Amino acid sequence: MAATKRVLLTGASGFVARHAQQRLLELGYEVHAVGFRATTAWAHRNVHVHTIDLLDERQSATLLRSVRPTHLMHLAWYAVPGKFWTSPDNLRWVSASLNLTHAFVEAGGTRAIYSGTCAEYDWSSGRCREDTTPLRPTTLYGTCKHALHSVLAQAADDMGLSVAWGRLFFVYGSYEADRRLVSSVITSLLKGEPTPCTHGRQVRDFMHVQDVADAMAALLDSPVTGPVNIASGDPRPVADVVRLIGDATGRSELVRWGARQPQPDEPERIEADVARLTDEVGFRPRLGLEEGIYQTVAWWRERLRAQSE
Amino acid sequence: MAATKRVLLTGASGFVARHAQQRLLELGYEVHAVGFRATTAWAHRNVHVHTIDLLDERQSATLLRSVRPTHLMHLAWYAVPGKFWTSPDNLRWVSASLNLTHAFVEAGGTRAIYSGTCAEYDWSSGRCREDTTPLRPTTLYGTCKHALHSVLAQAADDMGLSVAWGRLFFVYGSYEADRRLVSSVITSLLKGEPTPCTHGRQVRDFMHVQDVADAMAALLDSPVTGPVNIASGDPRPVADVVRLIGDATGRSELVRWGARQPQPDEPERIEADVARLTDEVGFRPRLGLEEGIYQTVAWWRERLRAQSE
Repeated sequence: MAATKRVLLTGASGFVARHAQQRLLELGYEVHAVGFRATTAWAHRNVHVHTIDLLDERQSATLLRSVRPTHLMHLAWYAVPGKFWTSPDNLRWVSASLNLTHAFVEAGGTRAIYSGTCAEYDWSSGRCREDTTPLRPTTLYGTCKHALHSVLAQAADDMGLSVAWGRLFFVYGSYEADRRLVSSVITSLLKGEPTPCTHGRQVRDFMHVQDVADAMAALLDSPVTGPVNIASGDPRPVADVVRLIGDATGRSELVRWGARQPQPDEPERIEADVARLTDEVGFRPRLGLEEGIYQTVAWWRERLRAQSE
Repeated sequence: MAATKRVLLTGASGFVARHAQQRLLELGYEVHAVGFRATTAWAHRNVHVHTIDLLDERQSATLLRSVRPTHLMHLAWYAVPGKFWTSPDNLRWVSASLNLTHAFVEAGGTRAIYSGTCAEYDWSSGRCREDTTPLRPTTLYGTCKHALHSVLAQAADDMGLSVAWGRLFFVYGSYEADRRLVSSVITSLLKGEPTPCTHGRQVRDFMHVQDVADAMAALLDSPVTGPVNIASGDPRPVADVVRLIGDATGRSELVRWGARQPQPDEPERIEADVARLTDEVGFRPRLGLEEGIYQTVAWWRERLRAQSE
């Protein structure tokens, strides 16, 4: 009989983690999902739910001692749109993540993966590759993620811990927060509102959240260590995304191209090399951009209808 | 009337901080010293002593709310000789330091300095200069200190905090832990024991702990921000130090040159550029190596005598 694989999944009510639960169950994990919110509508019925505040070290330590997970998928972080880039709360999440890791190892855990970010890279260096692109974050968020990874990577051997670090790029899909690019364009068009956009020539790597979640689960379940880009490898101009949303909503005439200025420091291209994810983890995304956007529009249409009833 | 300068000094029972108390008082600070040990023999009679465990976030937060310091000199860290380079406890001190900083800012603090280390630098890059030498730590200790600094430096503006970071090199003097170079050679020679040494050709920047403490106090009291090397700017072969100890103890015949092998990865030279400390902070050390070593030998002689009585 195979040994039990028991994973502690943090940030479980969040965007990526709520999509990861099903896949972790399919991979044979006993899933312990940690959320902060009082409601547990985000929880899959076959997961064990724990409602605690990870910023409280004692609550974390107590939970770890009781669950004794073999695996950790740590996705919780401060994520308020517009604020997360610069909030001092990023510091508290570095602390909480280190304390959680320490408690996880103390409780016998051996394999952990974390969510990093493309904002760790120097975006002026072209296509981002894990082992060669310079890491030069310019935001507090990117700096804190990078600092956390450098500490965990160096500590892994001494702690007997296998550490992987998924660097997420541009994630969209169901349950995305309201004020982000894809979610805001979709809801604005579905409501029939004129929708100001930039010229849309910025190139980004978009990946549907279900593929992101599946990729993280595959990474957890693999022996791969170190940083791995979690991305589609199919970079597109933002204009492609907006046009697809226009098609899927049938309201493309409401898009006001060029009505918004890009941020002055917005890089032209943010592209991911996905060789590690493809060749080492053996993961390929299931959804192309077209299908992903159409699914996402359908999900928002349903949600807005439910809200208006 | 000038506003009260109230400093919270952590690691107060430790090597550097116990030497810093007097100087901080002279600079006009109300000094609140935080120690972990039950005995407070380390405390200057005019400082306020607080005995708490900084690894416990709640104790830190409670203390900060009650003291409400304007200044922070954070010197506490895991420091067990031989173990501190690789101990997972380094992670807990990153967490504790971030939480302490957060609580300090919440309580109204505006100026903080921290102890960094020459082990943050890439030692193969020659004389270490704050703004140009690559930061490429190879140890968990160096990685954790570097990670902490990168986060604090990036967060400073967003938090309204003025942050300085003193990078300590090779510190020696009274109250040094037992198993370090200067302390072990002195005590061994004073006890009349044969004392195995390496060839001693490694070049290091040594600074007496009282000068280190005074430099940190001067840095705290200055408007200088960012990393500052805390070093003498007078690099010497280790053999010079051992010879001075031989002279000061009168037992140089007991030194067994070449009886120990240097560590395989020991760099030949670790030198500090001290332009920032000298020109921007305006600090110059008071003790040369000769005087510093003679004072230290006198202190150990007295201590060993007291212990044997």
